[in-house]
Amino acid sequence: MVQIAILGFGTVGSGIAEVIDGNQEEIRRDFPEGLNVKYILDLRDFPDSPYADRVVHDIDIILNDPEIRVICETMGGKNPAFDFSRRALERGISVCTSNKELVDALGGKLAVVAKEHNCSYLFEASVGGGIPILRPLRTSFSQEFVTDILGILNGTTNYILTKMEEEGLEFSEALKQAQDNGYAEKNPEADIEGYDPCRKIAILASLVTGKNVKYQQVPCEGISAIDKADLAYARRLNRAVKLLGVCHHDRSTGKIFVRTAPYMVPQGHPLHAVNDVFNGILVRGNMVGDLMFYGSGAGKLPTASAVVSDVIECVQNQGRNIDIGLNNTEAELIDPMTTKSRFFVRVSADKAAEAAALFDGIEAVSSEDPAEYAFVTGVVTEAEFAEKSQKLGAKSIRLL
Amino acid sequence: MVQIAILGFGTVGSGIAEVIDGNQEEIRRDFPEGLNVKYILDLRDFPDSPYADRVVHDIDIILNDPEIRVICETMGGKNPAFDFSRRALERGISVCTSNKELVDALGGKLAVVAKEHNCSYLFEASVGGGIPILRPLRTSFSQEFVTDILGILNGTTNYILTKMEEEGLEFSEALKQAQDNGYAEKNPEADIEGYDPCRKIAILASLVTGKNVKYQQVPCEGISAIDKADLAYARRLNRAVKLLGVCHHDRSTGKIFVRTAPYMVPQGHPLHAVNDVFNGILVRGNMVGDLMFYGSGAGKLPTASAVVSDVIECVQNQGRNIDIGLNNTEAELIDPMTTKSRFFVRVSADKAAEAAALFDGIEAVSSEDPAEYAFVTGVVTEAEFAEKSQKLGAKSIRLL
Repeated sequence: MVQIAILGFGTVGSGIAEVIDGNQEEIRRDFPEGLNVKYILDLRDFPDSPYADRVVHDIDIILNDPEIRVICETMGGKNPAFDFSRRALERGISVCTSNKELVDALGGKLAVVAKEHNCSYLFEASVGGGIPILRPLRTSFSQEFVTDILGILNGTTNYILTKMEEEGLEFSEALKQAQDNGYAEKNPEADIEGYDPCRKIAILASLVTGKNVKYQQVPCEGISAIDKADLAYARRLNRAVKLLGVCHHDRSTGKIFVRTAPYMVPQGHPLHAVNDVFNGILVRGNMVGDLMFYGSGAGKLPTASAVVSDVIECVQNQGRNIDIGLNNTEAELIDPMTTKSRFFVRVSADKAAEAAALFDGIEAVSSEDPAEYAFVTGVVTEAEFAEKSQKLGAKSIRLL
Repeated sequence: MVQIAILGFGTVGSGIAEVIDGNQEEIRRDFPEGLNVKYILDLRDFPDSPYADRVVHDIDIILNDPEIRVICETMGGKNPAFDFSRRALERGISVCTSNKELVDALGGKLAVVAKEHNCSYLFEASVGGGIPILRPLRTSFSQEFVTDILGILNGTTNYILTKMEEEGLEFSEALKQAQDNGYAEKNPEADIEGYDPCRKIAILASLVTGKNVKYQQVPCEGISAIDKADLAYARRLNRAVKLLGVCHHDRSTGKIFVRTAPYMVPQGHPLHAVNDVFNGILVRGNMVGDLMFYGSGAGKLPTASAVVSDVIECVQNQGRNIDIGLNNTEAELIDPMTTKSRFFVRVSADKAAEAAALFDGIEAVSSEDPAEYAFVTGVVTEAEFAEKSQKLGAKSIRLL
């Protein structure tokens, strides 16, 4: 049996033990030795758990056991997760994680440490939960230049937007439903303000360029300002409002543009049909065109399953580094103010003439509110739009 | 440079040369040696092609060149493709193919030959064109028991059904549009009768079980009997008609059930939104739940891109076999007559009472045709449905 350890016995950590025990027979098809969870590191004890006897409180017990081949880091947060991961990698123990905060902040650094010590740092579960996305990007796209990734990367906000759309709820009502159903946390800021999908698109952008993109560099808007009327306007435009992580990689300069923001997605676009807590990640390759990967972006067993897929790849490659193509240099970013979009805009009705004077070729959108004038702009730069929109006191959503 | 050869310079074969030349820089990121097409085997000459000087007409020139490491077999058909592939593998030359006919008929045999000679037989492009599906199944699902695959695996029929739905066309009109637009062949039988998706679901079922499923063993219905009224009924049921390849793998017995047939797919199901020429493949794992892979199921560059992804994996694993988990034994199939479904049924109006007597708990569906009575059955076995449906002279479509 190959011995592994789990750091952090929360939702994902305990899911890993369940997947390994429940599907040991499947794991042995590809890997006859089988996997065994030898240690679980946690501050707590779990006297009623079948894993009670494996719980330890000292990382050194794990790091000093020469039998341990892989560590699953499901503690979350930057510290001590970074320190524990680095020390494991320095001993040649591979680390597999779902910890997007650490991956975003220091993944490039840990990838380099892994390379230097002939082991691996993998994090399939950090983006899209159970959806295989990072491994396909690494193993099925060697012949592609990935120009764009567009992703619904956060199940909580997608659930809220779907409820608002389907049941005509206001944002606060839909948020409460999400909280009542366990899809949103009591403090929902990381989801609704877009910080969570922002980390995930930063990780995807890093893998696409092979260089670090940090979430602090990504312009980030959430959905807390979206209201019922926005969704009604979207419907009239045959669109739906989705919170997207977006990146565009320029082949000629190697520079990348990254953003998280709500977009109006047209009917017929594959992301339009991604509803409820599901995630969908569209990858555009210069040869293969548009592909989409769809599934549960969170949840105990799907996320744990993704971590275990990484564990199996690590043990199959024992003694050598799985190169994820990420180094510790900084990506060159495209200035977001230079990018272009069309915008859906709402202004007060008395600004209609001013709006028409400011923007070329706008298309009016019928409004149920006589005090409001709504329209869609032509393609404009962010800089130009920001300036004109401020003059109008406008509320806006980008069109995909 | 790693030297490769292309057998068959048709659509996909010439696409492979385009991908390799157009994205040589991307290929060298992961594989610094780079790839070069040294030979193209075809019966024809291509005097106006930039590849004219690489065309040969004798397979032995390729097989006897010790520089050739991988062959792309894009000839199609069983012979001489099987013979050429087998001879290459026996010399330790890996073979990558898009030839679903050969993979379905003899893929297990060729996989065994590859294993014996420390090289590989890969066929990502044979299912779903450019969509990464076989590699994710092999590399991201080692910890999963795949219980079900449901796929829209044929772009031509999906285009026809989408046109019928969106433009209210009859089957023959939509088929003509598909032919005019180059999406359907002059002899469209392989698509519209379901033989093409039948081969693809047989390949997927083979990989899921590790044993051979041949398309002749798969009950197969096409879409030529679907009419405008069926689509109108589906709409009233909030469903859309899709031609699906379906397999269900039973964990307790290891047996598998496979079918190709039109299904009424409910709104909200991820396959419901897969329209036009696109393919969508839903994979259900016992831990990860439902995932869907979506993209162009055909086309020159997407399909070629998938073949090149296989070539790169082969050269990265030079001298060893990539085990695709397929051997040359026969899969144990579940008798299709024992499987259960709900059915949508149309009978002549005078059979309404007889239908209600034959089936328990049917739900009537409103009809625009007074001469017709339409209803949905409860869950019944295929055997029971076949017997009762014959008595009624019924036309039917399964519900997903």
